[in-house]
Amino acid sequence: MNFASDNVYGIDPRIMAAVTEANSGTARSYGADDLSVAAEAKLSEIFETPVRAFLVATGTAANGLALSSISSAFGAIICHAEAHIFCDECNAPEFFTGGAKLLGLPGRQGKITPALIESCLKSFVRGEHDPKPMAVSITNASELGTVYSPNEIRAIADLVKPRGLRLHMDGARFANAVAGQGVTPAELTWKAGVDVMSFGGTKNGAMLLEAVVFFDCALAEDFSHRRMRAGQLMSKGRFLGAQMLAYLEDGRWLENANKANSLARRLGAGLADFPALRLYAPVEANEVFALMPEALYDKLLNSGVVCGRWIAAGVDEGEALVRFVVSFATPEDSVDRLLSLLPEIT
Amino acid sequence: MNFASDNVYGIDPRIMAAVTEANSGTARSYGADDLSVAAEAKLSEIFETPVRAFLVATGTAANGLALSSISSAFGAIICHAEAHIFCDECNAPEFFTGGAKLLGLPGRQGKITPALIESCLKSFVRGEHDPKPMAVSITNASELGTVYSPNEIRAIADLVKPRGLRLHMDGARFANAVAGQGVTPAELTWKAGVDVMSFGGTKNGAMLLEAVVFFDCALAEDFSHRRMRAGQLMSKGRFLGAQMLAYLEDGRWLENANKANSLARRLGAGLADFPALRLYAPVEANEVFALMPEALYDKLLNSGVVCGRWIAAGVDEGEALVRFVVSFATPEDSVDRLLSLLPEIT
Amino acid sequence: MNFASDNVYGIDPRIMAAVTEANSGTARSYGADDLSVAAEAKLSEIFETPVRAFLVATGTAANGLALSSISSAFGAIICHAEAHIFCDECNAPEFFTGGAKLLGLPGRQGKITPALIESCLKSFVRGEHDPKPMAVSITNASELGTVYSPNEIRAIADLVKPRGLRLHMDGARFANAVAGQGVTPAELTWKAGVDVMSFGGTKNGAMLLEAVVFFDCALAEDFSHRRMRAGQLMSKGRFLGAQMLAYLEDGRWLENANKANSLARRLGAGLADFPALRLYAPVEANEVFALMPEALYDKLLNSGVVCGRWIAAGVDEGEALVRFVVSFATPEDSVDRLLSLLPEIT
Amino acid sequence: MNFASDNVYGIDPRIMAAVTEANSGTARSYGADDLSVAAEAKLSEIFETPVRAFLVATGTAANGLALSSISSAFGAIICHAEAHIFCDECNAPEFFTGGAKLLGLPGRQGKITPALIESCLKSFVRGEHDPKPMAVSITNASELGTVYSPNEIRAIADLVKPRGLRLHMDGARFANAVAGQGVTPAELTWKAGVDVMSFGGTKNGAMLLEAVVFFDCALAEDFSHRRMRAGQLMSKGRFLGAQMLAYLEDGRWLENANKANSLARRLGAGLADFPALRLYAPVEANEVFALMPEALYDKLLNSGVVCGRWIAAGVDEGEALVRFVVSFATPEDSVDRLLSLLPEIT
Repeated sequence: MNFASDNVYGIDPRIMAAVTEANSGTARSYGADDLSVAAEAKLSEIFETPVRAFLVATGTAANGLALSSISSAFGAIICHAEAHIFCDECNAPEFFTGGAKLLGLPGRQGKITPALIESCLKSFVRGEHDPKPMAVSITNASELGTVYSPNEIRAIADLVKPRGLRLHMDGARFANAVAGQGVTPAELTWKAGVDVMSFGGTKNGAMLLEAVVFFDCALAEDFSHRRMRAGQLMSKGRFLGAQMLAYLEDGRWLENANKANSLARRLGAGLADFPALRLYAPVEANEVFALMPEALYDKLLNSGVVCGRWIAAGVDEGEALVRFVVSFATPEDSVDRLLSLLPEIT
Repeated sequence: MNFASDNVYGIDPRIMAAVTEANSGTARSYGADDLSVAAEAKLSEIFETPVRAFLVATGTAANGLALSSISSAFGAIICHAEAHIFCDECNAPEFFTGGAKLLGLPGRQGKITPALIESCLKSFVRGEHDPKPMAVSITNASELGTVYSPNEIRAIADLVKPRGLRLHMDGARFANAVAGQGVTPAELTWKAGVDVMSFGGTKNGAMLLEAVVFFDCALAEDFSHRRMRAGQLMSKGRFLGAQMLAYLEDGRWLENANKANSLARRLGAGLADFPALRLYAPVEANEVFALMPEALYDKLLNSGVVCGRWIAAGVDEGEALVRFVVSFATPEDSVDRLLSLLPEIT
Repeated sequence: MNFASDNVYGIDPRIMAAVTEANSGTARSYGADDLSVAAEAKLSEIFETPVRAFLVATGTAANGLALSSISSAFGAIICHAEAHIFCDECNAPEFFTGGAKLLGLPGRQGKITPALIESCLKSFVRGEHDPKPMAVSITNASELGTVYSPNEIRAIADLVKPRGLRLHMDGARFANAVAGQGVTPAELTWKAGVDVMSFGGTKNGAMLLEAVVFFDCALAEDFSHRRMRAGQLMSKGRFLGAQMLAYLEDGRWLENANKANSLARRLGAGLADFPALRLYAPVEANEVFALMPEALYDKLLNSGVVCGRWIAAGVDEGEALVRFVVSFATPEDSVDRLLSLLPEIT
Repeated sequence: MNFASDNVYGIDPRIMAAVTEANSGTARSYGADDLSVAAEAKLSEIFETPVRAFLVATGTAANGLALSSISSAFGAIICHAEAHIFCDECNAPEFFTGGAKLLGLPGRQGKITPALIESCLKSFVRGEHDPKPMAVSITNASELGTVYSPNEIRAIADLVKPRGLRLHMDGARFANAVAGQGVTPAELTWKAGVDVMSFGGTKNGAMLLEAVVFFDCALAEDFSHRRMRAGQLMSKGRFLGAQMLAYLEDGRWLENANKANSLARRLGAGLADFPALRLYAPVEANEVFALMPEALYDKLLNSGVVCGRWIAAGVDEGEALVRFVVSFATPEDSVDRLLSLLPEIT
């Protein structure tokens, strides 16, 4: 019963097969191979617009590199106070941007709103003593398993883009956000005003695979230099290209996300039935956040349930906020066992 | 007949098998998995001393991160003027170190010497107007396919370490350097004074696998933060750990290197027989550098030989310096066909 | 009636005289001149311990350089959410440290407490996904015109130094903090656990003069390189040395601070007498913060009072938080006129 | 007899008078004061075109900030191998640009040529493995006391600007370069293709005063943030503005430069008369470089002549390359005494 993270699970066997298959003969190195080139074309197809896409190894690198394309070192980047870039990347955004400042806003359920952003922008009254606000970054699906709708994104874009800011989306769980809403990838990104995104693959079935995808291709002008400088240009790039192609082929990426989302909804509904627990946020992707007595959390751990405590606002003394992440590879049986375990220990 | 680089070839099937095998069940993420832990232990065994080893995705990242552990942003790093860190990494060392200065010395055959380094150190006469010399980086095997012996390394270490500088080795082709000399990994590194190295796997059979290996473990104190900050901590780390274990098991890494070195020697000897060519440097690892008339180089390309022109000192007008890289996976037949082609086109 | 800032006023005539006097003959450049050397010795005398002191041009540079000596690029620096380094330096701390993260805590009256810091430190639960907490920075006198006592500083030091963090003090208004408490410079710094400080001169009578003062001199080892690299080593350094000597001579720095503090207290007491106003924080240095109806603030401006609106927590709708800064050079008459103006416009 | 540097001398008394005069009443801080505003207008007048000018404290800061406006962190900046930015600024250009790479070319007499630059640009054959060439920086007057003519500058600009590179001029001794050639400031800068320059004041009579002057004002868009972030925005900016106005008024800056240049020519001619010495470069500004036997150099030092040894190519064993810098404030008598001393000691 492992709900610790999506990344404790392995690789989609179809992706592994593609990696194995790519291992024959010679190929051009450093991303000039046929598979990497095809991966960019496939992403353009998925997004229904010509994109520039650059494969990298980790989400932290994808975020940092993407942000460095839209914020100068003297810039400010507005995000959620619980965003991965704000909390979980050990100053990587600062590193990649050369020292930009991240401003974390305390939005409900992991999401920031135009009102919060506008209020933040109003605080820039000190001229050059303030950094220059240059970008907004949203995470979709969010760190709390909620999703931004196209309308919500558009509202943010409409606010900030006329003021010269750029919009980034951290899409480490983008597949889950798309799958959960019945919208197209295009509707959830460039059609809603996103300039550049981090497109995640690892959490949803790949081995190590993220992409920086530019919808405003002018921003990508020097990106190949940025990626190289950051040590994110793989010499045997075909093995990233192969992963991406296999991930996107036949809608597998959404198939995997749907599977995880569906199981998460089941888990969420099951947990909500127990009076001792409350859901902290609606289950809109593949994560479930539940508030429970600390004693119950301890019992879960002792019963072999692998899950993690989360830090967020609004948690009472004696209460634990617990995160359950469901992956494409999580056995359905794990959810069933967890739900049947609960009556025994509450 | 592809001699463009070692990285145009794929993955050792035994390493691929290990990656496939690692794909079952759950594992702790971010390098805390059993395979990654075992990989560090295995490296300690290989080096006959307890090392701290951190797996990363690229050689550029390994070099940049290693250098950032031994040079401050106001430091100077002495290396060869044709070193990968100096020529081929798009300011990555400057990025990772926060702006340290690389000083490239023009040593013969891709190697720097104590005399060159001493002369460089003597030029630091400006106090704080100069950067502070903090590190020396050598590449073994070098970019010109030559190797440093333990004695040569020791001589450098004996010069610089009493002056407070640290010694880094870029070992992207370390296996080839070990295999070519009949020495132990320990003799070629910490026993000769190396503090930290970039230990390469990708060029010699892995998919994407490099390690920063610390022999002076105190230098590794904050390295986990450095790696994370640089976006080089893989969430599904087991797939790096699996590669490293399979690479090192049963001496495969040296077996592969021996195979490549041996083929390179055969190629070098064959090329040296042609009066139209001369070897630019002795063949001590898996690369052959040959000077030839430009017209001959063009004929090679037109005949389907994939190889690359190299930039270095001492090349006459009308002459091309051509690099042939032999990998563990280069078919012997490729060498034979190249050598039999030459009489036809010269 | 200019209360906009201490830096709208000019230079103490005695300091100007010293600058003029320094302008004869030749002197060694780049801080090796006799006056700069004497300034360091004088600071050691003032602090009753051998310090290393480096003169720079601005407080932002002093802070950034000092912080870069105690925090790595992957570090976190804890400070007040209204600290100058957090709010007013356009990412300079991030620039000088290479990307360290500042964590701003919401303490009362511009000050942070051991309890707040401890709570912050407890949030570091993510290992290398978090930055490494490396430093605490306090501002004394604070941005809200309050002061830390030696005991308050000691309590912070006792909390954080056993955990390996270093303590920095932004002393842009250090003279006012010393003068306001009847303590010695030593008691307020190294005796209370401060490792390095930014010692301000500009706001209190100098032209452009700040110093980075190290009490833990080992931290200063490479500081001359840091200062040079940041473009803060002045070629005609004697004109900084002359300022510092004249500033410190005969206790002038405290004399100036006492004058400003005393006038500020008078202004604060006077303002507190008006029912329409409330002091936002006690007047412990040379700044007065008053809450007033917005209409009153507008009337002040229209009456020729130069003062500024401040952003802080706890200000009601329709209310303005207004800052009045009193300098050593503020005419007493300005305070009198302001206080006599108020009954007319309230 | 002090020829160590122009910065061992003090301040032009007229500039000191202006600083003193500026010390009355209040003034807006952070460069919004009347004097700073007027200084920018005066520079526009001097250059016969609207410029954006930003006052800073040191030449190293001016250079670093200017370069950061025209090169990204992944860029390459081409300069002379003996340029101040390459040799004397302790990695400051790397710091301010976030890690750009400086490429130092070995031009004769301190100057780089279109041929050298073109050859350097041809070496960029590695795509994103190379940095991106983004800027050329020339020093005028050069570090060897020679000057670039408008035509020489134009030839460089004509080569590099069509390729997207920007042209920077380090004008720490710009006054000497203008004075030595009988050309206008405009002819020597923007009319010849310079985009941005570091305009020096300190070496030629100011206290601490440099300006970053943009001729392509679009490049200055975010410069106020850059300057602030670097700790180079002075709170009492009027004292920089006052210096600049006094420096430029009535052509004093050129008067001072002419005086220094003329004396340097006298010294150069005098030295050239001695068979034991040879001039290393023509005397075109305020510096004289002479080759002499080491023994003679020692005798000079022992006779109380303060001068410095210089490092450059083409110096034979046993020979010293010695730099004599003449300032606006160097007593004529010093030159006479030096020249009359020489026959006694040769």
